[in-house]
Amino acid sequence: MFTGLNAFPLTPVTASKIDETGFVRLVARLTAAKVDAIGALGSTGCYAYLTRQQRQRVATLAVEHADNIPVMVCVGAVSTDEVLHLADDAQRAGARALLLPPVSYQPLSEEEVFNLFDTVSRHVSVPLCLYDNPGTTRFTFTSGLYQRIAALPHVRSIKIPGVPADEEKASGHIRQLRAVLPTHVSLGVSVDAVAGLGLNAGCDLWYSVCGGLFPQTAKAITDAAAQGDAQRVTRLSARLEPLWALFRQHGGSLRVMAAAASAQGLTDVDCLPRPLLPLSAAQRAEVAAVIAALELS
Amino acid sequence: MFTGLNAFPLTPVTASKIDETGFVRLVARLTAAKVDAIGALGSTGCYAYLTRQQRQRVATLAVEHADNIPVMVCVGAVSTDEVLHLADDAQRAGARALLLPPVSYQPLSEEEVFNLFDTVSRHVSVPLCLYDNPGTTRFTFTSGLYQRIAALPHVRSIKIPGVPADEEKASGHIRQLRAVLPTHVSLGVSVDAVAGLGLNAGCDLWYSVCGGLFPQTAKAITDAAAQGDAQRVTRLSARLEPLWALFRQHGGSLRVMAAAASAQGLTDVDCLPRPLLPLSAAQRAEVAAVIAALELS
Repeated sequence: MFTGLNAFPLTPVTASKIDETGFVRLVARLTAAKVDAIGALGSTGCYAYLTRQQRQRVATLAVEHADNIPVMVCVGAVSTDEVLHLADDAQRAGARALLLPPVSYQPLSEEEVFNLFDTVSRHVSVPLCLYDNPGTTRFTFTSGLYQRIAALPHVRSIKIPGVPADEEKASGHIRQLRAVLPTHVSLGVSVDAVAGLGLNAGCDLWYSVCGGLFPQTAKAITDAAAQGDAQRVTRLSARLEPLWALFRQHGGSLRVMAAAASAQGLTDVDCLPRPLLPLSAAQRAEVAAVIAALELS
Repeated sequence: MFTGLNAFPLTPVTASKIDETGFVRLVARLTAAKVDAIGALGSTGCYAYLTRQQRQRVATLAVEHADNIPVMVCVGAVSTDEVLHLADDAQRAGARALLLPPVSYQPLSEEEVFNLFDTVSRHVSVPLCLYDNPGTTRFTFTSGLYQRIAALPHVRSIKIPGVPADEEKASGHIRQLRAVLPTHVSLGVSVDAVAGLGLNAGCDLWYSVCGGLFPQTAKAITDAAAQGDAQRVTRLSARLEPLWALFRQHGGSLRVMAAAASAQGLTDVDCLPRPLLPLSAAQRAEVAAVIAALELS
Protein backbone atom coordinates (compact mmCIF):
# COMPACT_ATOMS: atom_id res chain seq x y z
CA MET A 1 0.00 0.00 0.00
CA PHE A 2 3.03 2.29 0.03
CA THR A 3 3.21 3.20 -3.65
CA GLY A 4 1.28 5.52 -5.96
CA LEU A 5 -1.46 7.65 -4.44
CA ASN A 6 -2.55 7.65 -0.81
CA ALA A 7 -5.49 10.07 -0.76
CA PHE A 8 -6.43 11.95 2.42
CA PRO A 9 -10.13 12.84 2.58
CA LEU A 10 -11.59 15.60 4.72
CA THR A 11 -13.73 14.56 7.69
CA PRO A 12 -16.65 16.99 7.40
CA VAL A 13 -17.96 18.19 10.76
CA THR A 14 -21.28 20.00 11.04
CA ALA A 15 -22.64 21.50 14.27
CA SER A 16 -20.17 19.48 16.35
CA LYS A 17 -21.12 16.19 14.70
CA ILE A 18 -19.40 14.11 12.04
CA ASP A 19 -21.24 14.49 8.73
CA GLU A 20 -21.19 10.78 8.03
CA THR A 21 -23.08 11.06 4.75
CA GLY A 22 -20.63 13.68 3.51
CA PHE A 23 -17.65 11.57 4.58
CA VAL A 24 -18.98 8.49 2.80
CA ARG A 25 -19.52 10.59 -0.34
CA LEU A 26 -15.87 11.68 -0.20
CA VAL A 27 -14.67 8.09 0.25
CA ALA A 28 -16.82 6.98 -2.70
CA ARG A 29 -14.89 9.36 -4.98
CA LEU A 30 -11.65 7.69 -3.90
CA THR A 31 -12.85 4.15 -4.53
CA ALA A 32 -14.29 5.18 -7.90
CA ALA A 33 -10.88 6.58 -8.86
CA LYS A 34 -9.16 3.43 -7.57
CA VAL A 35 -6.58 5.26 -5.47
CA ASP A 36 -3.87 3.00 -4.04
CA ALA A 37 -4.70 3.75 -0.44
CA ILE A 38 -6.90 6.00 1.68
CA GLY A 39 -5.44 8.09 4.50
CA ALA A 40 -8.32 8.54 6.94
CA LEU A 41 -8.19 11.03 9.79
CA GLY A 42 -5.03 12.76 8.64
CA SER A 43 -4.55 16.47 9.26
CA THR A 44 -7.08 17.06 6.47
CA GLY A 45 -9.26 14.46 8.17
CA CYS A 46 -9.30 16.76 11.23
CA TYR A 47 -8.21 14.00 13.60
CA ALA A 48 -6.86 16.46 16.15
CA TYR A 49 -10.32 17.96 16.70
CA LEU A 50 -12.25 14.72 17.22
CA THR A 51 -12.92 12.60 20.27
CA ARG A 52 -11.67 9.04 20.52
CA GLN A 53 -15.23 7.80 19.84
CA GLN A 54 -15.57 10.01 16.76
CA ARG A 55 -12.22 8.84 15.45
CA GLN A 56 -13.23 5.21 15.91
CA ARG A 57 -16.46 5.85 14.03
CA VAL A 58 -14.70 7.58 11.12
CA ALA A 59 -12.08 4.81 10.90
CA THR A 60 -14.86 2.22 10.81
CA LEU A 61 -16.79 4.12 8.12
CA ALA A 62 -13.64 4.53 6.03
CA VAL A 63 -12.85 0.81 6.10
CA GLU A 64 -16.49 -0.19 5.47
CA HIS A 65 -16.73 2.04 2.41
CA ALA A 66 -13.20 1.59 1.05
CA ASP A 67 -14.12 -1.23 -1.32
CA ASN A 68 -11.06 -3.20 -0.13
CA ILE A 69 -8.66 -0.35 -0.81
CA PRO A 70 -6.29 -0.34 2.20
CA VAL A 71 -7.01 2.36 4.76
CA MET A 72 -4.29 3.99 6.82
CA VAL A 73 -5.54 5.74 9.97
CA CYS A 74 -3.74 8.53 11.80
CA VAL A 75 -3.40 7.85 15.54
CA GLY A 76 -1.75 11.10 16.59
CA ALA A 77 -2.34 12.54 20.07
CA VAL A 78 -0.40 14.57 22.61
CA SER A 79 -0.40 11.70 25.13
CA THR A 80 1.28 8.37 24.40
CA ASP A 81 -1.44 6.54 26.33
CA GLU A 82 -4.04 8.06 24.06
CA VAL A 83 -2.02 7.08 20.98
CA LEU A 84 -2.00 3.45 22.15
CA HIS A 85 -5.77 3.49 22.68
CA LEU A 86 -6.29 5.05 19.26
CA ALA A 87 -4.02 2.44 17.67
CA ASP A 88 -6.09 -0.35 19.26
CA ASP A 89 -9.30 1.29 18.04
CA ALA A 90 -7.97 1.78 14.50
CA GLN A 91 -6.73 -1.80 14.23
CA ARG A 92 -10.08 -3.09 15.48
CA ALA A 93 -11.77 -0.92 12.83
CA GLY A 94 -9.70 -2.67 10.16
CA ALA A 95 -6.95 -0.13 9.47
CA ARG A 96 -4.23 -1.74 7.34
CA ALA A 97 -1.62 0.81 8.49
CA LEU A 98 -1.26 3.52 11.11
CA LEU A 99 0.08 7.03 10.64
CA LEU A 100 1.89 8.48 13.65
CA PRO A 101 2.86 12.15 14.03
CA PRO A 102 4.76 13.33 17.12
CA VAL A 103 2.03 15.74 18.23
CA SER A 104 3.39 18.00 20.92
CA TYR A 105 2.27 20.43 23.59
CA GLN A 106 5.53 20.86 25.45
CA PRO A 107 8.19 20.90 22.72
CA LEU A 108 9.61 17.36 22.56
CA SER A 109 13.22 16.23 22.62
CA GLU A 110 14.58 13.80 20.04
CA GLU A 111 14.75 11.09 22.73
CA GLU A 112 11.11 11.64 23.68
CA VAL A 113 9.99 11.29 20.05
CA PHE A 114 12.10 8.16 19.61
CA ASN A 115 10.56 6.68 22.74
CA LEU A 116 7.05 7.44 21.46
CA PHE A 117 7.73 5.54 18.22
CA ASP A 118 9.49 2.75 20.09
CA THR A 119 6.51 2.28 22.43
CA VAL A 120 3.93 2.37 19.65
CA SER A 121 5.89 0.14 17.26
CA ARG A 122 6.07 -2.57 19.93
CA HIS A 123 2.35 -2.27 20.61
CA VAL A 124 0.88 -2.52 17.11
CA SER A 125 0.55 -5.33 14.59
CA VAL A 126 0.12 -3.42 11.30
CA PRO A 127 2.60 -1.27 9.36
CA LEU A 128 3.42 2.11 10.84
CA CYS A 129 4.10 5.30 8.89
CA LEU A 130 6.13 8.09 10.49
CA TYR A 131 4.22 11.33 9.92
CA ASP A 132 6.61 14.26 9.72
CA ASN A 133 4.63 17.51 9.65
CA PRO A 134 6.44 20.27 11.54
CA GLY A 135 3.72 22.79 10.61
CA THR A 136 1.25 21.08 12.93
CA THR A 137 3.42 19.02 15.31
CA ARG A 138 6.17 21.65 15.69
CA PHE A 139 8.76 18.93 15.82
CA THR A 140 11.63 18.83 13.34
CA PHE A 141 13.10 15.43 12.51
CA THR A 142 16.75 14.87 11.71
CA SER A 143 17.75 12.14 9.24
CA GLY A 144 19.48 10.46 12.19
CA LEU A 145 16.18 10.18 14.01
CA TYR A 146 14.45 8.92 10.82
CA GLN A 147 17.11 6.23 10.74
CA ARG A 148 16.63 5.16 14.36
CA ILE A 149 12.85 5.03 13.98
CA ALA A 150 13.05 3.22 10.61
CA ALA A 151 14.86 0.37 12.40
CA LEU A 152 11.91 -0.21 14.74
CA PRO A 153 9.44 -3.07 14.15
CA HIS A 154 6.48 -2.34 11.84
CA VAL A 155 7.86 0.95 10.50
CA ARG A 156 7.32 0.83 6.73
CA SER A 157 7.02 4.40 5.50
CA ILE A 158 7.90 8.02 6.16
CA LYS A 159 5.54 10.80 5.13
CA ILE A 160 8.03 13.60 4.52
CA PRO A 161 7.07 17.28 4.66
CA GLY A 162 7.85 18.13 1.07
CA VAL A 163 11.16 18.37 -0.72
CA PRO A 164 13.30 21.41 -1.62
CA ALA A 165 11.63 23.38 -4.44
CA ASP A 166 14.42 22.65 -6.91
CA GLU A 167 14.88 19.46 -8.97
CA GLU A 168 18.49 18.83 -8.11
CA LYS A 169 18.13 19.65 -4.44
CA ALA A 170 15.01 17.49 -4.22
CA SER A 171 16.86 14.54 -5.79
CA GLY A 172 19.82 15.09 -3.47
CA HIS A 173 17.52 15.17 -0.45
CA ILE A 174 15.81 11.89 -1.35
CA ARG A 175 19.15 10.27 -2.18
CA GLN A 176 20.49 11.27 1.23
CA LEU A 177 17.44 9.81 2.97
CA ARG A 178 17.62 6.55 0.98
CA ALA A 179 21.25 6.22 1.98
CA VAL A 180 20.37 6.03 5.68
CA LEU A 181 17.06 4.13 5.49
CA PRO A 182 16.42 0.40 5.05
CA THR A 183 14.91 -0.55 1.70
CA HIS A 184 11.67 -1.78 3.28
CA VAL A 185 10.86 1.78 4.41
CA SER A 186 9.14 3.76 1.66
CA LEU A 187 9.27 7.52 1.26
CA GLY A 188 6.05 9.39 0.58
CA VAL A 189 5.97 13.05 -0.31
CA SER A 190 3.44 15.44 1.16
CA VAL A 191 2.88 19.18 0.71
CA ASP A 192 0.98 18.96 -2.55
CA ALA A 193 2.72 21.88 -4.26
CA VAL A 194 6.01 19.95 -4.36
CA ALA A 195 4.54 16.45 -4.84
CA GLY A 196 5.57 16.34 -8.51
CA LEU A 197 9.12 17.30 -7.58
CA GLY A 198 9.11 14.64 -4.85
CA LEU A 199 7.87 11.89 -7.16
CA ASN A 200 10.43 12.81 -9.82
CA ALA A 201 13.11 12.81 -7.11
CA GLY A 202 12.28 9.18 -6.37
CA CYS A 203 9.58 9.19 -3.69
CA ASP A 204 7.55 5.96 -3.74
CA LEU A 205 4.21 7.64 -3.27
CA TRP A 206 2.26 10.83 -2.75
CA TYR A 207 0.43 11.34 0.54
CA SER A 208 -2.02 13.70 -1.07
CA VAL A 209 -4.47 16.28 0.27
CA CYS A 210 -5.66 17.30 -3.20
CA GLY A 211 -6.14 13.61 -4.00
CA GLY A 212 -8.53 13.27 -1.06
CA LEU A 213 -11.10 15.30 -3.00
CA PHE A 214 -9.78 15.27 -6.57
CA PRO A 215 -8.40 11.75 -6.92
CA GLN A 216 -8.52 11.64 -10.73
CA THR A 217 -6.43 14.80 -10.93
CA ALA A 218 -3.91 13.47 -8.40
CA LYS A 219 -3.81 9.98 -9.88
CA ALA A 220 -2.88 11.32 -13.31
CA ILE A 221 0.30 12.59 -11.65
CA THR A 222 1.19 9.40 -9.74
CA ASP A 223 0.38 7.34 -12.88
CA ALA A 224 2.77 9.49 -14.91
CA ALA A 225 5.40 8.98 -12.20
CA ALA A 226 4.83 5.20 -12.30
CA GLN A 227 5.43 5.30 -16.05
CA GLY A 228 8.66 7.21 -15.48
CA ASP A 229 7.33 10.21 -17.41
CA ALA A 230 8.95 12.96 -15.36
CA GLN A 231 8.04 15.70 -17.83
CA ARG A 232 4.37 14.80 -17.65
CA VAL A 233 4.55 14.76 -13.82
CA THR A 234 6.05 18.26 -13.90
CA ARG A 235 3.52 19.55 -16.44
CA LEU A 236 0.48 18.15 -14.62
CA SER A 237 1.69 19.43 -11.28
CA ALA A 238 2.61 22.92 -12.55
CA ARG A 239 -0.86 23.24 -14.06
CA LEU A 240 -2.30 23.06 -10.55
CA GLU A 241 -0.37 26.14 -9.40
CA PRO A 242 -3.60 28.18 -8.87
CA LEU A 243 -4.70 25.53 -6.33
CA TRP A 244 -1.31 25.58 -4.57
CA ALA A 245 -1.60 29.39 -4.48
CA LEU A 246 -4.91 29.09 -2.64
CA PHE A 247 -3.28 26.72 -0.11
CA ARG A 248 -0.52 29.29 0.52
CA GLN A 249 -3.02 32.12 0.76
CA HIS A 250 -5.27 30.46 3.35
CA GLY A 251 -2.71 29.16 5.85
CA GLY A 252 -2.56 25.65 4.43
CA SER A 253 -4.73 23.29 2.49
CA LEU A 254 -7.45 22.38 4.99
CA ARG A 255 -9.73 25.42 4.80
CA VAL A 256 -9.43 25.40 1.00
CA MET A 257 -10.30 21.72 0.74
CA ALA A 258 -13.32 22.24 3.00
CA ALA A 259 -14.47 25.07 0.71
CA ALA A 260 -13.82 22.89 -2.32
CA ALA A 261 -15.83 19.97 -0.90
CA SER A 262 -18.79 22.24 -0.26
CA ALA A 263 -18.41 23.88 -3.70
CA GLN A 264 -18.75 20.37 -5.17
CA GLY A 265 -21.96 19.87 -3.20
CA LEU A 266 -20.42 17.07 -1.18
CA THR A 267 -20.57 18.74 2.25
CA ASP A 268 -22.16 21.70 3.99
CA VAL A 269 -20.45 25.07 3.55
CA ASP A 270 -19.56 25.03 7.24
CA CYS A 271 -17.88 21.65 7.57
CA LEU A 272 -14.86 22.40 9.76
CA PRO A 273 -14.63 21.71 13.50
CA ARG A 274 -14.37 24.83 15.68
CA PRO A 275 -12.24 26.82 16.30
CA LEU A 276 -11.53 26.48 12.55
CA LEU A 277 -13.70 28.77 10.46
CA PRO A 278 -14.86 28.30 6.88
CA LEU A 279 -13.62 30.67 4.21
CA SER A 280 -15.78 33.70 3.41
CA ALA A 281 -18.29 33.64 0.55
CA ALA A 282 -15.92 35.63 -1.66
CA GLN A 283 -13.04 33.29 -0.89
CA ARG A 284 -15.22 30.26 -1.54
CA ALA A 285 -16.23 31.69 -4.92
CA GLU A 286 -12.55 31.99 -5.76
CA VAL A 287 -11.99 28.35 -4.79
CA ALA A 288 -14.95 27.28 -6.96
CA ALA A 289 -13.55 29.29 -9.89
CA VAL A 290 -10.16 27.55 -9.58
CA ILE A 291 -11.81 24.12 -9.46
CA ALA A 292 -13.75 24.94 -12.63
CA ALA A 293 -10.81 26.47 -14.47
CA LEU A 294 -8.51 23.53 -13.69
CA GLU A 295 -11.28 20.97 -14.21
CA LEU A 296 -10.32 19.26 -10.97
CA SER A 297 -11.95 15.88 -10.54
CA MET B 1 -8.06 36.32 43.07
CA PHE B 2 -6.12 38.23 40.42
CA THR B 3 -3.41 39.76 42.59
CA GLY B 4 -0.26 38.48 44.26
CA LEU B 5 0.73 34.88 43.64
CA ASN B 6 -1.18 32.35 41.60
CA ALA B 7 0.80 29.13 42.03
CA PHE B 8 0.72 26.38 39.39
CA PRO B 9 1.37 22.91 40.82
CA LEU B 10 2.57 19.94 38.81
CA THR B 11 0.11 17.10 38.25
CA PRO B 12 2.29 14.07 38.93
CA VAL B 13 1.54 11.11 36.65
CA THR B 14 2.91 7.67 37.38
CA ALA B 15 2.47 4.65 35.12
CA SER B 16 -0.35 6.38 33.20
CA LYS B 17 -2.27 7.23 36.37
CA ILE B 18 -2.63 10.48 38.30
CA ASP B 19 -0.56 10.27 41.49
CA GLU B 20 -3.36 11.68 43.62
CA THR B 21 -1.39 11.46 46.87
CA GLY B 22 1.50 13.35 45.32
CA PHE B 23 -0.82 16.01 43.92
CA VAL B 24 -2.52 16.54 47.27
CA ARG B 25 0.92 16.90 48.88
CA LEU B 26 1.79 19.60 46.38
CA VAL B 27 -1.48 21.45 47.02
CA ALA B 28 -0.89 21.25 50.78
CA ARG B 29 2.35 23.21 50.36
CA LEU B 30 0.39 25.96 48.60
CA THR B 31 -2.30 26.24 51.27
CA ALA B 32 0.35 26.22 54.01
CA ALA B 33 2.07 29.15 52.30
CA LYS B 34 -1.28 30.92 51.85
CA VAL B 35 -0.81 31.66 48.16
CA ASP B 36 -3.45 33.97 46.70
CA ALA B 37 -4.71 31.44 44.19
CA ILE B 38 -3.94 28.00 42.81
CA GLY B 39 -3.64 27.40 39.08
CA ALA B 40 -4.57 23.75 38.63
CA LEU B 41 -3.95 21.89 35.39
CA GLY B 42 -1.85 24.59 33.79
CA SER B 43 0.97 23.66 31.44
CA THR B 44 2.93 22.58 34.53
CA GLY B 45 -0.21 20.71 35.58
CA CYS B 46 0.16 18.67 32.37
CA TYR B 47 -3.44 19.33 31.31
CA ALA B 48 -2.68 18.65 27.67
CA TYR B 49 -1.73 15.03 28.42
CA LEU B 50 -4.76 14.08 30.51
CA THR B 51 -8.18 12.75 29.59
CA ARG B 52 -11.33 14.72 30.33
CA GLN B 53 -12.05 12.37 33.25
CA GLN B 54 -8.56 12.80 34.68
CA ARG B 55 -8.83 16.57 34.39
CA GLN B 56 -12.18 16.54 36.19
CA ARG B 57 -10.66 14.44 38.97
CA VAL B 58 -7.64 16.75 39.38
CA ALA B 59 -9.86 19.85 39.40
CA THR B 60 -12.03 18.27 42.08
CA LEU B 61 -9.02 17.28 44.19
CA ALA B 62 -7.53 20.77 43.87
CA VAL B 63 -10.73 22.46 45.07
CA GLU B 64 -11.29 19.94 47.88
CA HIS B 65 -7.77 20.46 49.24
CA ALA B 66 -7.42 24.19 48.56
CA ASP B 67 -8.57 25.27 52.01
CA ASN B 68 -10.83 27.89 50.41
CA ILE B 69 -8.04 29.43 48.37
CA PRO B 70 -9.60 30.08 44.94
CA VAL B 71 -8.66 27.58 42.27
CA MET B 72 -8.33 28.51 38.60
CA VAL B 73 -8.52 25.55 36.21
CA CYS B 74 -7.10 25.46 32.69
CA VAL B 75 -9.64 24.29 30.11
CA GLY B 76 -7.44 24.31 27.03
CA ALA B 77 -8.05 21.85 24.18
CA VAL B 78 -7.64 21.80 20.41
CA SER B 79 -11.40 21.48 19.87
CA THR B 80 -13.84 24.18 21.00
CA ASP B 81 -16.44 21.54 21.85
CA GLU B 82 -13.96 19.91 24.18
CA VAL B 83 -13.16 23.28 25.79
CA LEU B 84 -16.85 23.80 26.54
CA HIS B 85 -17.15 20.35 28.12
CA LEU B 86 -14.02 20.99 30.19
CA ALA B 87 -15.38 24.36 31.31
CA ASP B 88 -18.60 22.69 32.47
CA ASP B 89 -16.60 20.04 34.32
CA ALA B 90 -14.30 22.60 35.98
CA GLN B 91 -17.18 24.79 37.10
CA ARG B 92 -18.96 21.75 38.53
CA ALA B 93 -15.75 20.88 40.38
CA GLY B 94 -15.80 24.33 42.00
CA ALA B 95 -13.27 26.25 39.92
CA ARG B 96 -13.46 29.96 40.75
CA ALA B 97 -11.90 30.94 37.42
CA LEU B 98 -10.97 29.32 34.12
CA LEU B 99 -7.73 29.66 32.19
CA LEU B 100 -8.07 29.46 28.41
CA PRO B 101 -5.14 29.06 25.99
CA PRO B 102 -5.75 28.98 22.22
CA VAL B 103 -4.32 25.49 21.79
CA SER B 104 -3.81 24.81 18.13
CA TYR B 105 -3.16 21.98 15.72
CA GLN B 106 -3.74 23.79 12.45
CA PRO B 107 -2.24 27.25 13.00
CA LEU B 108 -5.16 29.55 13.94
CA SER B 109 -6.13 32.91 12.50
CA GLU B 110 -6.83 35.91 14.74
CA GLU B 111 -10.52 35.61 13.91
CA GLU B 112 -10.60 31.94 14.88
CA VAL B 113 -8.99 32.70 18.24
CA PHE B 114 -11.39 35.57 18.86
CA ASN B 115 -14.31 33.30 18.07
CA LEU B 116 -13.03 30.67 20.50
CA PHE B 117 -12.92 33.22 23.33
CA ASP B 118 -16.27 34.68 22.29
CA THR B 119 -17.93 31.24 22.37
CA VAL B 120 -16.40 30.26 25.70
CA SER B 121 -17.02 33.63 27.39
CA ARG B 122 -20.74 33.35 26.57
CA HIS B 123 -20.87 29.81 27.89
CA VAL B 124 -19.25 30.19 31.32
CA SER B 125 -20.31 31.83 34.58
CA VAL B 126 -16.96 32.37 36.33
CA PRO B 127 -14.08 34.73 35.48
CA LEU B 128 -11.98 33.81 32.47
CA CYS B 129 -8.26 34.36 32.09
CA LEU B 130 -6.70 34.56 28.64
CA TYR B 131 -3.67 32.27 28.62
CA ASP B 132 -1.06 33.57 26.20
CA ASN B 133 1.73 31.00 25.86
CA PRO B 134 3.10 30.91 22.31
CA GLY B 135 5.70 28.30 23.29
CA THR B 136 3.01 25.65 23.68
CA THR B 137 0.02 27.03 21.73
CA ARG B 138 2.08 28.42 18.83
CA PHE B 139 -0.29 31.35 18.58
CA THR B 140 0.97 34.92 18.90
CA PHE B 141 -1.48 37.51 20.23
CA THR B 142 -1.49 41.14 19.14
CA SER B 143 -2.49 43.85 21.62
CA GLY B 144 -5.46 44.50 19.32
CA LEU B 145 -6.69 40.96 19.88
CA TYR B 146 -6.08 41.27 23.65
CA GLN B 147 -8.32 44.33 23.52
CA ARG B 148 -11.12 42.60 21.61
CA ILE B 149 -11.08 39.60 23.94
CA ALA B 150 -10.84 41.78 27.07
CA ALA B 151 -14.19 43.33 26.09
CA LEU B 152 -15.94 39.94 26.21
CA PRO B 153 -18.07 38.93 29.20
CA HIS B 154 -16.27 37.23 32.12
CA VAL B 155 -12.77 38.05 30.89
CA ARG B 156 -10.87 39.31 33.96
CA SER B 157 -7.20 38.60 33.42
CA ILE B 158 -4.48 38.02 30.88
CA LYS B 159 -1.58 35.68 31.62
CA ILE B 160 1.13 37.27 29.51
CA PRO B 161 4.17 35.34 28.26
CA GLY B 162 6.80 37.37 30.10
CA VAL B 163 7.98 40.91 29.52
CA PRO B 164 11.05 42.25 27.69
CA ALA B 165 14.20 41.54 29.75
CA ASP B 166 14.90 45.22 30.40
CA GLU B 167 13.29 47.41 33.06
CA GLU B 168 12.34 50.29 30.82
CA LYS B 169 11.09 48.11 27.98
CA ALA B 170 9.11 45.98 30.42
CA SER B 171 7.45 49.09 31.90
CA GLY B 172 6.72 50.43 28.43
CA HIS B 173 5.18 47.11 27.40
CA ILE B 174 2.86 46.97 30.42
CA ARG B 175 1.94 50.66 29.99
CA GLN B 176 0.99 49.98 26.37
CA LEU B 177 -1.18 47.02 27.36
CA ARG B 178 -2.89 49.00 30.16
CA ALA B 179 -3.68 51.73 27.67
CA VAL B 180 -5.79 49.39 25.55
CA LEU B 181 -7.33 47.21 28.27
CA PRO B 182 -10.28 47.90 30.58
CA THR B 183 -9.33 48.38 34.24
CA HIS B 184 -11.24 45.27 35.33
CA VAL B 185 -8.82 43.09 33.35
CA SER B 186 -5.70 42.28 35.38
CA LEU B 187 -2.29 41.49 33.93
CA GLY B 188 -0.37 38.54 35.30
CA VAL B 189 3.19 37.82 34.34
CA SER B 190 4.42 34.35 33.54
CA VAL B 191 7.84 33.00 32.50
CA ASP B 192 9.37 32.90 35.97
CA ALA B 193 12.76 34.30 34.99
CA VAL B 194 11.20 37.69 34.19
CA ALA B 195 8.47 37.66 36.86
CA GLY B 196 10.32 40.20 39.02
CA LEU B 197 10.67 42.52 36.05
CA GLY B 198 6.97 42.06 35.26
CA LEU B 199 5.85 42.80 38.82
CA ASN B 200 8.06 45.90 38.98
CA ALA B 201 6.66 46.98 35.62
CA GLY B 202 3.17 46.96 37.11
CA CYS B 203 1.73 43.48 36.60
CA ASP B 204 -0.99 42.69 39.14
CA LEU B 205 0.15 39.18 39.81
CA TRP B 206 2.56 36.38 39.06
CA TYR B 207 1.27 33.22 37.40
CA SER B 208 4.09 31.18 38.81
CA VAL B 209 5.55 27.78 37.99
CA CYS B 210 8.24 28.01 40.67
CA GLY B 211 5.52 29.02 43.15
CA GLY B 212 3.66 25.78 42.44
CA LEU B 213 6.39 23.88 44.27
CA PHE B 214 8.26 26.58 46.19
CA PRO B 215 5.47 28.91 47.28
CA GLN B 216 7.39 30.55 50.16
CA THR B 217 10.19 31.50 47.80
CA ALA B 218 7.75 32.91 45.23
CA LYS B 219 5.57 34.64 47.80
CA ALA B 220 8.53 36.56 49.18
CA ILE B 221 8.76 38.16 45.75
CA THR B 222 5.05 38.99 45.32
CA ASP B 223 4.95 40.27 48.93
CA ALA B 224 7.86 42.60 48.19
CA ALA B 225 6.01 43.78 45.06
CA ALA B 226 2.86 44.40 47.10
CA GLN B 227 4.94 46.56 49.45
CA GLY B 228 6.29 48.50 46.49
CA ASP B 229 9.83 47.36 47.26
CA ALA B 230 11.10 47.04 43.70
CA GLN B 231 14.71 46.59 44.74
CA ARG B 232 13.83 43.65 46.95
CA VAL B 233 11.78 42.12 44.10
CA THR B 234 14.80 42.44 41.82
CA ARG B 235 17.21 41.03 44.42
CA LEU B 236 15.04 38.04 45.32
CA SER B 237 14.37 37.23 41.69
CA ALA B 238 18.01 37.60 40.58
CA ARG B 239 19.07 35.22 43.37
CA LEU B 240 17.04 32.48 41.65
CA GLU B 241 19.08 32.74 38.44
CA PRO B 242 20.49 29.18 38.86
CA LEU B 243 16.88 27.89 38.78
CA TRP B 244 16.03 29.96 35.70
CA ALA B 245 19.22 28.60 34.09
CA LEU B 246 17.97 25.05 34.63
CA PHE B 247 14.65 25.99 32.99
CA ARG B 248 16.51 27.33 29.94
CA GLN B 249 18.77 24.28 29.82
CA HIS B 250 15.96 21.71 29.87
CA GLY B 251 13.56 23.13 27.28
CA GLY B 252 11.33 24.89 29.80
CA SER B 253 10.34 24.59 33.41
CA LEU B 254 8.23 21.41 33.41
CA ARG B 255 10.88 18.70 33.42
CA VAL B 256 12.89 20.65 36.02
CA MET B 257 9.88 21.07 38.33
CA ALA B 258 9.11 17.36 38.03
CA ALA B 259 12.70 16.58 39.04
CA ALA B 260 12.45 19.11 41.86
CA ALA B 261 9.21 17.60 43.18
CA SER B 262 10.77 14.14 43.28
CA ALA B 263 13.98 15.52 44.84
CA GLN B 264 11.77 16.89 47.63
CA GLY B 265 10.29 13.44 48.13
CA LEU B 266 6.84 14.65 47.08
CA THR B 267 6.46 12.52 43.95
CA ASP B 268 8.06 9.55 42.21
CA VAL B 269 11.16 10.25 40.13
CA ASP B 270 9.20 9.38 37.01
CA CYS B 271 6.16 11.62 37.38
CA LEU B 272 5.67 13.00 33.87
CA PRO B 273 3.11 11.73 31.35
CA ARG B 274 4.61 10.09 28.25
CA PRO B 275 5.99 11.07 25.79
CA LEU B 276 7.68 13.42 28.27
CA LEU B 277 10.72 11.86 29.92
CA PRO B 278 12.19 12.60 33.34
CA LEU B 279 15.64 14.16 33.55
CA SER B 280 18.60 11.81 33.92
CA ALA B 281 20.03 10.94 37.35
CA ALA B 282 22.92 13.38 36.82
CA GLN B 283 20.54 16.16 35.77
CA ARG B 284 18.30 15.45 38.76
CA ALA B 285 21.28 15.69 41.09
CA GLU B 286 22.02 19.12 39.64
CA VAL B 287 18.42 20.20 40.25
CA ALA B 288 18.63 18.95 43.86
CA ALA B 289 21.88 20.87 44.34
CA VAL B 290 20.28 24.12 43.11
CA ILE B 291 17.29 23.62 45.42
CA ALA B 292 19.62 23.15 48.37
CA ALA B 293 21.92 26.04 47.48
CA LEU B 294 19.03 28.47 47.00
CA GLU B 295 17.13 27.08 49.98
CA LEU B 296 13.96 26.95 47.88
CA SER B 297 10.86 26.33 49.95
